[in-house]
Amino acid sequence: MIFSQVFAVRRALAVVIAAVGLMHAVGAAAEDGYRLWLRYDPVAQPAHDPYAAQATRIVAWGNSPVVTAAVAELNRGVAGMLGTAPPASTTVADGAIVLGTPGSSPEVARRARDLGLAAAGPEGFVLQSTRWDGHPVTLIAANTDVGLLYGSFRFLARMQRGESLAGLDLHDAPRLTLRVLDHWDNPDRSIERGYAGQSIWDFWRLPGYLDPRYTDYARADASIGINGVMVNNVNASAVYLTPSWIAKLAALAGVLRPYGIHVYLSVLFNSPLDLKETKTGDPRDPAVIAWWHAKVDELYKAIPDFGGFVVKADSEGEPGPRDYHLTQAQGANMIAGALAPHGGVLMWRAFIYASENTQDRVRQAYAEFKPLDGQFAPNVLVQIKNGPLDFQPREPAHPLFGALPHTNEMLEVQLTKEYLGFSTHLVYLGALFSEVLHWDTFAHGAGSTVAHVIDGSLDGHTLTGMAGDSNVGVDRDWTGSIFNQADWYAFGRLAWDPQADPRKIASDWVGMTFSSDPAVVTPLVGMMMASREAVVDYMTPLGLAHIMGTGHHYGPGPWIDDLKRPEWNPVYYHHAGRDGIGFDRTPSGSNALADYAPDVARRLSDPNVDDAKYLLWFHHVPWTFRLASGRTVWDELTYRYSRGVATVHSMAGTWDSLQARIDPERFSETAAFLRIQQDEAQWWRDACVAYFQQQSQLPLAPGVAAPPHPLAWYESLVFRYAPGRSQPDPDHGIAH
Amino acid sequence: MIFSQVFAVRRALAVVIAAVGLMHAVGAAAEDGYRLWLRYDPVAQPAHDPYAAQATRIVAWGNSPVVTAAVAELNRGVAGMLGTAPPASTTVADGAIVLGTPGSSPEVARRARDLGLAAAGPEGFVLQSTRWDGHPVTLIAANTDVGLLYGSFRFLARMQRGESLAGLDLHDAPRLTLRVLDHWDNPDRSIERGYAGQSIWDFWRLPGYLDPRYTDYARADASIGINGVMVNNVNASAVYLTPSWIAKLAALAGVLRPYGIHVYLSVLFNSPLDLKETKTGDPRDPAVIAWWHAKVDELYKAIPDFGGFVVKADSEGEPGPRDYHLTQAQGANMIAGALAPHGGVLMWRAFIYASENTQDRVRQAYAEFKPLDGQFAPNVLVQIKNGPLDFQPREPAHPLFGALPHTNEMLEVQLTKEYLGFSTHLVYLGALFSEVLHWDTFAHGAGSTVAHVIDGSLDGHTLTGMAGDSNVGVDRDWTGSIFNQADWYAFGRLAWDPQADPRKIASDWVGMTFSSDPAVVTPLVGMMMASREAVVDYMTPLGLAHIMGTGHHYGPGPWIDDLKRPEWNPVYYHHAGRDGIGFDRTPSGSNALADYAPDVARRLSDPNVDDAKYLLWFHHVPWTFRLASGRTVWDELTYRYSRGVATVHSMAGTWDSLQARIDPERFSETAAFLRIQQDEAQWWRDACVAYFQQQSQLPLAPGVAAPPHPLAWYESLVFRYAPGRSQPDPDHGIAH
Repeated sequence: MIFSQVFAVRRALAVVIAAVGLMHAVGAAAEDGYRLWLRYDPVAQPAHDPYAAQATRIVAWGNSPVVTAAVAELNRGVAGMLGTAPPASTTVADGAIVLGTPGSSPEVARRARDLGLAAAGPEGFVLQSTRWDGHPVTLIAANTDVGLLYGSFRFLARMQRGESLAGLDLHDAPRLTLRVLDHWDNPDRSIERGYAGQSIWDFWRLPGYLDPRYTDYARADASIGINGVMVNNVNASAVYLTPSWIAKLAALAGVLRPYGIHVYLSVLFNSPLDLKETKTGDPRDPAVIAWWHAKVDELYKAIPDFGGFVVKADSEGEPGPRDYHLTQAQGANMIAGALAPHGGVLMWRAFIYASENTQDRVRQAYAEFKPLDGQFAPNVLVQIKNGPLDFQPREPAHPLFGALPHTNEMLEVQLTKEYLGFSTHLVYLGALFSEVLHWDTFAHGAGSTVAHVIDGSLDGHTLTGMAGDSNVGVDRDWTGSIFNQADWYAFGRLAWDPQADPRKIASDWVGMTFSSDPAVVTPLVGMMMASREAVVDYMTPLGLAHIMGTGHHYGPGPWIDDLKRPEWNPVYYHHAGRDGIGFDRTPSGSNALADYAPDVARRLSDPNVDDAKYLLWFHHVPWTFRLASGRTVWDELTYRYSRGVATVHSMAGTWDSLQARIDPERFSETAAFLRIQQDEAQWWRDACVAYFQQQSQLPLAPGVAAPPHPLAWYESLVFRYAPGRSQPDPDHGIAH
Repeated sequence: MIFSQVFAVRRALAVVIAAVGLMHAVGAAAEDGYRLWLRYDPVAQPAHDPYAAQATRIVAWGNSPVVTAAVAELNRGVAGMLGTAPPASTTVADGAIVLGTPGSSPEVARRARDLGLAAAGPEGFVLQSTRWDGHPVTLIAANTDVGLLYGSFRFLARMQRGESLAGLDLHDAPRLTLRVLDHWDNPDRSIERGYAGQSIWDFWRLPGYLDPRYTDYARADASIGINGVMVNNVNASAVYLTPSWIAKLAALAGVLRPYGIHVYLSVLFNSPLDLKETKTGDPRDPAVIAWWHAKVDELYKAIPDFGGFVVKADSEGEPGPRDYHLTQAQGANMIAGALAPHGGVLMWRAFIYASENTQDRVRQAYAEFKPLDGQFAPNVLVQIKNGPLDFQPREPAHPLFGALPHTNEMLEVQLTKEYLGFSTHLVYLGALFSEVLHWDTFAHGAGSTVAHVIDGSLDGHTLTGMAGDSNVGVDRDWTGSIFNQADWYAFGRLAWDPQADPRKIASDWVGMTFSSDPAVVTPLVGMMMASREAVVDYMTPLGLAHIMGTGHHYGPGPWIDDLKRPEWNPVYYHHAGRDGIGFDRTPSGSNALADYAPDVARRLSDPNVDDAKYLLWFHHVPWTFRLASGRTVWDELTYRYSRGVATVHSMAGTWDSLQARIDPERFSETAAFLRIQQDEAQWWRDACVAYFQQQSQLPLAPGVAAPPHPLAWYESLVFRYAPGRSQPDPDHGIAH
């Protein structure tokens, strides 16, 4: 007996070693970021055993695809973290995870009031430690199967972060109805402003081949509550509306459906004309109206839970109602009318500026939409970017927020770093998104934050939403870097709860992605929170904006002044000259301040408000204007540029200090990217200091380093193959 | 004692279960094809222990990066297959793997003659079971470190395939000097004729970020003996020759170097003019000559082992010596002159047809190059596609093979399936490559095979080579499908030994990729070998060629007759009409037969030669012409189209029968692709039968199914977003 047991030990250990060896052999790819924040790595003792006692089996009522997905995820997660997949059972026992809705379980129905399920709404859930037939269990209860799915992900997330699963009584529900990731993906698989490889949608091989990656994508979205995916570029190709592409889309929708995700399409305003199926795109034309109704019927026949459309109209060359001398509301309502019978929605983008308009670009959307308040159909949302320009490192909030009380307003933010360093700069966008959500519009006095505008509470809307312009591509790590994953994660969390604390979100993400060890979490969260201020400092401090390179938007270009339209040129935005710098948007200038509520306008008229964050956005000031810091604008500008570079160096130092605590693959990738970011931050700083010094003709303050090259050197740099530029659509020709 | 041991067993088993659970959790991605044929999966008993006894430690003399790579690979492979990484040691013991060259090990030097190392040359190796200081060891000996690397891969391959490692005395060396994979990758990361995603070269993030995938790519290449990589499209951008891109290329070369891989660039003939650094591209201009010398010096300074250039000149719009009224040899020799001092080579493509030439397209390259034999510099290779047209499912061999005895001739084959169904069709190209290698040119009488032409033995050349147009992209499985990996593998094997048996290569690949179980190997090899004949049958039977869709080359288009140049149109190639079908290349027609050796021409003048494989390539025959099969040409044509479809059905059946023996992920992907292939084979067959019946106006033989749609339906199909079309180069404008 003894000898056989010793032998058994040896054999078992040999197998362990073999398995570990295999994992190492395979391991070259194991830390490539593919698993995102859903790693489900083994949990060590002492946490292991208490968790195992609370995941002994899974008892799920109902067998819908959504419930099946929830159970599969619990299985995968628990097997990964605890080493044993909990068996499915129909019998409750000690430590069971029990999933049910009032519809699938009479017992859940009986407890519905006690559980407070009414407050969970159609997507929320209750996660409760309770007794069931006398057994201690963890109950995941919801009104719908998708609530069970979200509750299952929450259960697993707590285990991943090392949080207790005892004594749970957790009630949660999303504050927004539509939580949509917008993919600016083209039919040729290129992605406009994508920096993580081609589109994950392999339309060419759909519907015949369903890439398993679609499922992993859906899992990631569902884990953070994203319930909608717009699959294609807002500069839209009409090919998606042809029968063979609808069949492809339907196959994709079938993969996303069990994860509670609805698909949306971006459509050209004049789609039937573009497809040569009508003679006009005029929304008053009966043939056009009939075409849209028939096309929408065809879509819903193929995809019964189709979400609806997104339209970018009258912007950057796209067709729109203006072409027919109609308002945005008239244009939107015609298409919305086709969607309404099916419960579909229309997200109508407010990102409009006219090629012939000489008005300050940041005022044009407000001017166009403000008079239309109350005129949009009930199933239309006006989708508004966080700021009035275009996803700059920092902008004031868009003045339309709170200005359309009789309109469904939704927020659009950009996850892909078009203006923030592409894939390699570590810039945590949770901080940026949260800044606008906390912006007080004063629409109904203090406390009228953008969060309360878009969650509908301010003006009593129930059709609410938030859209994020995706940073996802086929790169193995999905987003071009490990840290860009945090932006996807933060978007989902903030769309679920716009009030959520971005620091807490960062902390949760680090806990799931790297480690729950405070020695890792604390420095990384600090680095992430500092990173957004860093990019503002080294690219566009003091309220500067839009001073990047032309077309690709890569690198500094404050000197650019030769583009056809005035508002395409960086010089239009900074107005730097011998006399000073900044865009006068006070009453003596474009008066964009007037588009904000009086309380806000009054506050922003102070150049020093919020540490002069918005100074040069709203004010043109002499270089010698002295700020609250005690420095002149000129000195403050160069100080902040230098500070941004220093912060990146400090971030790199923080990262280096964690080498022993991070796996080699992710450590070295991020270290390489931080080196690139250091170099590029320095380049931004040096080029901008060189340019603005040419304008100010002032000396650098003591201790401020002179740029190593003359301005002409920075101006001479050319980047012909910068990524993210969309190829022209062969049948449409829109480039942007 | 007993209890503690039982406890230890339980704990050990718990860890096993946890580890296995983790692997399953991670395992969603585990069978995604990333590991290619280098899987290193655990070896079961009874094979395990004998292998383990022959891999107890690694004793490697020398510590060059190449030796380090060899040792790392042995470690990875043995750890994966046997569960324990053999320790590195400087002391030989029983079962050691010993690596040495005469330069690194006096003992290997002493044994060099007995080992026959002279025959191993600069890249060969000896793998020998021998005794060393009295210990039984496996000796990997070579003249150079790269030979050790190749020997190490061979050692591991034997273990992977379950072959014996006892009594080894294996001597091997490559027959060709240059074994190069050509990537048609563009600087924007698109790939001309690529069907496996974007380029794996992330030039944008080079040199700051070295994607770990580069190393895995190099390992795969080295494992099959590939020693050169041309990184960019033959329709070349000159940006690669700018200083910042040379720095990027140098960083990439640094990753490939330890794997014995040299980098090559494709260059525009008029690069200095394109870069606006000279006023002409004329190769006689002193400034142009000086530019090339300086640029090559700059390249070799950055990359001391740079391989050389590939040039596509005077073809499909590319510039070339014709623009300056010079011969191909004059053009080539100028650039070769800049490379020669550094030992660099120039691969000059023979793929030439002029836009103003009315001569039969398949004769033009012969006409242009034949008179130049003997005029090319010693470091020039003329690179010749397998057939005289362009990588069709079947072509006769290119008549230039054997026709340039005083010229270094190398073979170019295409791995990416431009004309063979893109990524989803299972077509094993080892059979295609091997067909041309075994083609007898009769240049010096019988036995003058293409293999002997390109290995230099026929005419006494030492600078030899074979190029494969890569099918590699960022798709997780590298090549767009699991079975496309076999083409990469077969290319390497055939470039190493052009005489190798494609069936044996397929068998080795299956053994390493799926299983060595004959119940898997036999049916899969049968399926692979049948697959090439299937695609010939369902696309272009009986010597048809070039009847595909325009531009994207996807799907059938035999009716196309409206393109600007005659030779762009499918009708140019099949000449089908009421009177018959086929291109008359006998003396009564274009007389392309005259470009072949008389023995070959005589043979090909028989319409029935080789089962009428080349019938319609060389002959125009009446539809009623009766073949050796007993059928008329018309009946034989429809018979073969139908047979091709039937073979694909049979392949799908074979695959389905193996479901229990293949992991679910790879099984379901291939099953989906085979369904796509069935549908597309049927489409090809139906469309071609419909079209040719319109020409022949003959009834279908009994039992031959009529196409389900009228011809007009097939003609109406449009594919705007077919993959693989190169985007225009912004600074050059060549589109192919």
